[in-house]
Amino acid sequence: MTTTATDEVIRKAKRAKAASARLAAMSRAEKDEILLAMADALEAASSEILEANRRDVEAVQQKQSSAAPVDRLLLTEARIAETAEGLRTVARLPDPVGEVLAGWRLPNGIEISKVRVPLGVVGIIYESRPNVTVDAAALCFKAGNAVILRGGSDAINSNIALVRILNEAGVKHGLPEGAIEIIETTDRAAAGQLMRLTQYVDVLVPRGGHGLIRRVKEESRVPVIETGEGNCHVYVDAAADLARAEEIVVNAKCQRPSVCNAAETLLVHRDVASEFLPKVGARLAAMGVELRGCDETRRHMSEAKPATEEDWATEFLSLVLAVKVVGGVDEAIAHINRYGTRHSEAIITQNLNNARRFTREIDAAAVYVNASTRFTDGGQFGMGAEIGISTQKLHARGPMGLPELTSYKFVIMGEGQIRP
Amino acid sequence: MTTTATDEVIRKAKRAKAASARLAAMSRAEKDEILLAMADALEAASSEILEANRRDVEAVQQKQSSAAPVDRLLLTEARIAETAEGLRTVARLPDPVGEVLAGWRLPNGIEISKVRVPLGVVGIIYESRPNVTVDAAALCFKAGNAVILRGGSDAINSNIALVRILNEAGVKHGLPEGAIEIIETTDRAAAGQLMRLTQYVDVLVPRGGHGLIRRVKEESRVPVIETGEGNCHVYVDAAADLARAEEIVVNAKCQRPSVCNAAETLLVHRDVASEFLPKVGARLAAMGVELRGCDETRRHMSEAKPATEEDWATEFLSLVLAVKVVGGVDEAIAHINRYGTRHSEAIITQNLNNARRFTREIDAAAVYVNASTRFTDGGQFGMGAEIGISTQKLHARGPMGLPELTSYKFVIMGEGQIRP
Repeated sequence: MTTTATDEVIRKAKRAKAASARLAAMSRAEKDEILLAMADALEAASSEILEANRRDVEAVQQKQSSAAPVDRLLLTEARIAETAEGLRTVARLPDPVGEVLAGWRLPNGIEISKVRVPLGVVGIIYESRPNVTVDAAALCFKAGNAVILRGGSDAINSNIALVRILNEAGVKHGLPEGAIEIIETTDRAAAGQLMRLTQYVDVLVPRGGHGLIRRVKEESRVPVIETGEGNCHVYVDAAADLARAEEIVVNAKCQRPSVCNAAETLLVHRDVASEFLPKVGARLAAMGVELRGCDETRRHMSEAKPATEEDWATEFLSLVLAVKVVGGVDEAIAHINRYGTRHSEAIITQNLNNARRFTREIDAAAVYVNASTRFTDGGQFGMGAEIGISTQKLHARGPMGLPELTSYKFVIMGEGQIRP
Repeated sequence: MTTTATDEVIRKAKRAKAASARLAAMSRAEKDEILLAMADALEAASSEILEANRRDVEAVQQKQSSAAPVDRLLLTEARIAETAEGLRTVARLPDPVGEVLAGWRLPNGIEISKVRVPLGVVGIIYESRPNVTVDAAALCFKAGNAVILRGGSDAINSNIALVRILNEAGVKHGLPEGAIEIIETTDRAAAGQLMRLTQYVDVLVPRGGHGLIRRVKEESRVPVIETGEGNCHVYVDAAADLARAEEIVVNAKCQRPSVCNAAETLLVHRDVASEFLPKVGARLAAMGVELRGCDETRRHMSEAKPATEEDWATEFLSLVLAVKVVGGVDEAIAHINRYGTRHSEAIITQNLNNARRFTREIDAAAVYVNASTRFTDGGQFGMGAEIGISTQKLHARGPMGLPELTSYKFVIMGEGQIRP
């Protein structure tokens, strides 16, 4: 790592830490005014943003021919307007800071309040989509945190332009300097440096693919909230309404296959396999889904190729579905708890006992009965917005909104009490 | 590390993971019956425990002459009875598992419940006191978790005996094998191994001194809840009731100086320094407190030796107190946020504005107005029991009781809903 990179990360982390004290004390009115000013500024500066984005897109196109990453990277007037609207949505969300979560009086007269406070400094390490830059900055800021953004090199010009515009607009309305920092050095070492700054950074949230999340989990000395990996299952029980099951399977796999809450494996009870698999197989194949089945599946689903052991453990994030016949709810639960990533899991059944067992025994952030796994999302859950979907059990699980970007403190009022 | 040590840690972690699924499904009645049986078994087996403890004490006495560690290590009939009573207290605490934390219905009719579930497998790495073995096992178990205990080598015979007795009694009443595991290999490498088993261990809680906590924070790949370090301050404001302030300072320093919530630094407003410091100095000196003051302090407190920069950052855990004169609440807040460990901080004042500023701007788990810092404790706070006091902001802050040893999941009930 160059000295300059180290200097940049440390300098910005220090500035973020200093800003966090001021941010923690800001009122909702002050914060919302800043968010609305930022939204207007983004729209007003759209040509500047599009120009920076054009440079990113060209650089990626020169490196490779695949269109997919370019689509994720590309900004348009419409996408900028959407991002600005996202800032206005965050302004409308209630301020979590200052909420009294609980309060009680001790026998000696001491009064205790448990009060929600910001986490402090949040680091976000993410991949190419530049809208994450604005969304993450807005959510961290509304929850009273300073944020250090470390985006992918593909979007670096877009990200720098976006953060500059947010800061210029924000500072005019009282945003403390250092509240929104972006690491401009894009080498791996800069991210590594950020992961070691326990004295300045309170939590790191990686957002991106398997490799990124693994690396942050492995390397970070700063506490991490793991997000996103979703090897999700739909289990169709013997007691399922098969017409509903078919709609749910098709929705969970096909409605948006590239996201973490899409289904990757279908488990079907042996008793309904011969009826259900041919129908759902034909429907999925017609929608372009590549099917990979166990031996028993392939007897009922002519479209299926043989599944390998690896398929059960894979988050395809594309139109591929692994299919397995199981002997019942026990085997389904065991399979999911073995291969799942603790994200979103569904059972389709009319049997109350199986539904209860599934919801209790499956170890996942979101466990569904008779609904598509695609609902695991802060917006869908009614949380207003989300910074990511946690697949760990510490601190926050499932969709993380503003309250999940906070901690709490105990405020204790006495009149001279001492401990006997 | 020997292969045997690696084998032991991995074997026990796997067994704990397997037990955790069964533990999560246990009812409160089942768990309480086991806790009460364990309490009776400890009392019945006291001679066996004392015999194992005698071997530990002798080994430590042969290594060194200081009496202090031996006192922490020593078990007596009375201490065993107290530990058994602790198990009965945990049995009386409400079961956190299954609590519905929130629930709502989406516009499409889907019903969401946020339900408390166990964390899974909790690792505890701790130093010599053998009562921690039983307390930690009981709290983790009541919260539905499997526990892997890794105590210090000084108490290894006591710890092994205690865990064997807990398991023998528990298994007779339905405790799953693997619910309470103890690592018998006492080398550093065994602890290191435990810190890397992310696939089996959900969280690590280190309990002990600065060195142990640092090491776990540095090395662990498993998420950590940091506990215990307390460089706590009492700030006596110009508007303080000085008689009360004196009682609080004496209590916070002297009532039990070896614990994390004892005060280590006294900050005094310049306007009351000449009145307050001579009085409190004489009183503290008479109680055997070594005083280390800034230059200005020493003009009013003849007993004080000069304080060094290092003193402001030190958790003495003994009858030593650093003393500093400050210009007001701003300087007090800045000093505490710079040198404190975010544990427990107190202001003594009758000024409402200063009290409000202190409670809002101090970044600590517990912030006191006009009371001793010694109340930061799960038992004192009315939580029934505690596994430790968290000084981090993620997951839990301050005293951690049973709810802090849990996570949650979302249970979603539908009737065929799919995402449009």
